[in-house]
Amino acid sequence: MKVSEIGEFGLIARLAKMAQNAKDKDAAAFKQLLVGIGDDAAAYFPDNEIQLATVDSLVQDVHFSLSYMSWQELGWKSIAVNLSDIAAMGGFPRYALVSLGLPPDTEVENVIDLYRGMFDIAGKFGLAIVGGDTVSSPVVFVSVTVMGSAGDRKRGMLRRSAAKPGDKIAVTNSLGASAGGLKMLQKGLKFAPKYTKQLRQAHLLPDPRVNEGQLLVAKRVRCGMDISDGLVGDLAHICAESKVGARINVDVVPVAPAATACFGEKALELALTGGEDYELLFTANPMVMSKVLKAMPCPVTVVGEITAENTGKVKLVDNSDKPYRIKKTGWDHFNK
Amino acid sequence: MKVSEIGEFGLIARLAKMAQNAKDKDAAAFKQLLVGIGDDAAAYFPDNEIQLATVDSLVQDVHFSLSYMSWQELGWKSIAVNLSDIAAMGGFPRYALVSLGLPPDTEVENVIDLYRGMFDIAGKFGLAIVGGDTVSSPVVFVSVTVMGSAGDRKRGMLRRSAAKPGDKIAVTNSLGASAGGLKMLQKGLKFAPKYTKQLRQAHLLPDPRVNEGQLLVAKRVRCGMDISDGLVGDLAHICAESKVGARINVDVVPVAPAATACFGEKALELALTGGEDYELLFTANPMVMSKVLKAMPCPVTVVGEITAENTGKVKLVDNSDKPYRIKKTGWDHFNK
Repeated sequence: MKVSEIGEFGLIARLAKMAQNAKDKDAAAFKQLLVGIGDDAAAYFPDNEIQLATVDSLVQDVHFSLSYMSWQELGWKSIAVNLSDIAAMGGFPRYALVSLGLPPDTEVENVIDLYRGMFDIAGKFGLAIVGGDTVSSPVVFVSVTVMGSAGDRKRGMLRRSAAKPGDKIAVTNSLGASAGGLKMLQKGLKFAPKYTKQLRQAHLLPDPRVNEGQLLVAKRVRCGMDISDGLVGDLAHICAESKVGARINVDVVPVAPAATACFGEKALELALTGGEDYELLFTANPMVMSKVLKAMPCPVTVVGEITAENTGKVKLVDNSDKPYRIKKTGWDHFNK
Repeated sequence: MKVSEIGEFGLIARLAKMAQNAKDKDAAAFKQLLVGIGDDAAAYFPDNEIQLATVDSLVQDVHFSLSYMSWQELGWKSIAVNLSDIAAMGGFPRYALVSLGLPPDTEVENVIDLYRGMFDIAGKFGLAIVGGDTVSSPVVFVSVTVMGSAGDRKRGMLRRSAAKPGDKIAVTNSLGASAGGLKMLQKGLKFAPKYTKQLRQAHLLPDPRVNEGQLLVAKRVRCGMDISDGLVGDLAHICAESKVGARINVDVVPVAPAATACFGEKALELALTGGEDYELLFTANPMVMSKVLKAMPCPVTVVGEITAENTGKVKLVDNSDKPYRIKKTGWDHFNK
């Protein structure tokens, strides 16, 4: 059955039904929800806390292709990239609005699969999908807004503008697998099943570092963001916002083993500029950083330090302190 | 200059600059804003009140055509339709996130005009544009999320589910001019300059009934929504959500004078099913309604009443109580 046969309101009814069934009554978001899908706006009564809001859109054949990605994976990823922005503030995700553009001849079953992927990840993070909009469009697009909480004013947040000279720079887990996965999917590259699975998963089903972001704030880290455009490009945003410079030792950057196994020497470039890692990039003074290294449940690697000179710039060096050159610094939606 | 030349971050920088200049320090939204454009998420500390959130997307050649609509008008309207959803809850708009899909060869000047239209209407309603996302897309789309407040729990909201048998049904101002305007623009119809202007304005620059919605709540109205899909179709949503029926006297429906002047007998159909009026449709018991009729600063017309029978259905009659038939009941994005 085509979307054009059940129409906008038929689709919204399906979403509402799935949202009803998905309700996890224990999550704060559901307890505070007053009006969900089916009215003019969602309404909720949050705790008296700082509220966060972010939006990210994925467009067919720009950010994804349905030739290599399932509808369910698309649903997961479209929510994941937004949860990653909440994680990047060290916040608690609460509510999502989904704006969906669909060609009229889309199969209803595919849209249900998309919703399924969304509810999978929403359930994992206590996120309530509370509204949206479904419109006709020549290409599929998914525009998701996520609202969250950042606790009270005393708690603090991860800001891009809070880096200070002398801070150590660190990243969670490893980098490059997502960009490697994209390359593999786009070019139809063949690798060992183990690596194929890891690269695919990294690119299509990223796991937002929500708990890790919250823990960083608890440990007094105040500067951080998520890596969506690539380590070097994103670190440049921190440098610009904080009016500092940065220096990275490329030889200690944690390159994902699957990327190294499949792309050899090129894996480092994927880790530095590939993007879509959705790992956390953060800075903290050495004392805070040493506590973080002990406390974090995931691998954390110090990759460099914040400098007073070279404001807005990221300097790359190797183990012997020689400059390291790369071709491009990060993803720009209009300059691929 | 093309969007592809200044890139995503160039565009975001322009938006951030305009947001900075647009700041109206007196509006509550700006006083409570902690993090605006340029970090991973916006952050604000609202009053301890019910929060509202809504999203609506406009897609090129589905919801609008740049052949008859300017970029500035598109900016205005993309915010207006969302403010109308906040008005439809009787709420106070506060923050907006803008997700923009643009072909890479879009002129930067056009995007600036789009932002200009957004900041025009944002300034009028104390709305702070606090973030967004700009992506490459084969067609232009604008997906706007608006967050607002609905006061404390005692204040009440306009819900679709609160209609009761015996309630009077009313609408603000007049209907049909927007649908008439669309017809005029799409078919290149020629009318007297006065009417051309009114129809054009109604369709391209709708004025969301934000203050009117707030006043309705203050006057103890508890059931209402905005008319985006057409009076009959939208009233059917109220009937479905409230588990009641409705009866409308088509002879008292306030048809916009410009629609009558330009479309004669067909104007009534435009008023009943045309859609995109962005007027408020609400119900209240006769005592509350009589107070509302006196208190509202704009024309309000009682067009019918809520019934216990015909659950989920809208019955149309004329002055002599004879059934009135229409062809379609409202706008569906996938069945035009």
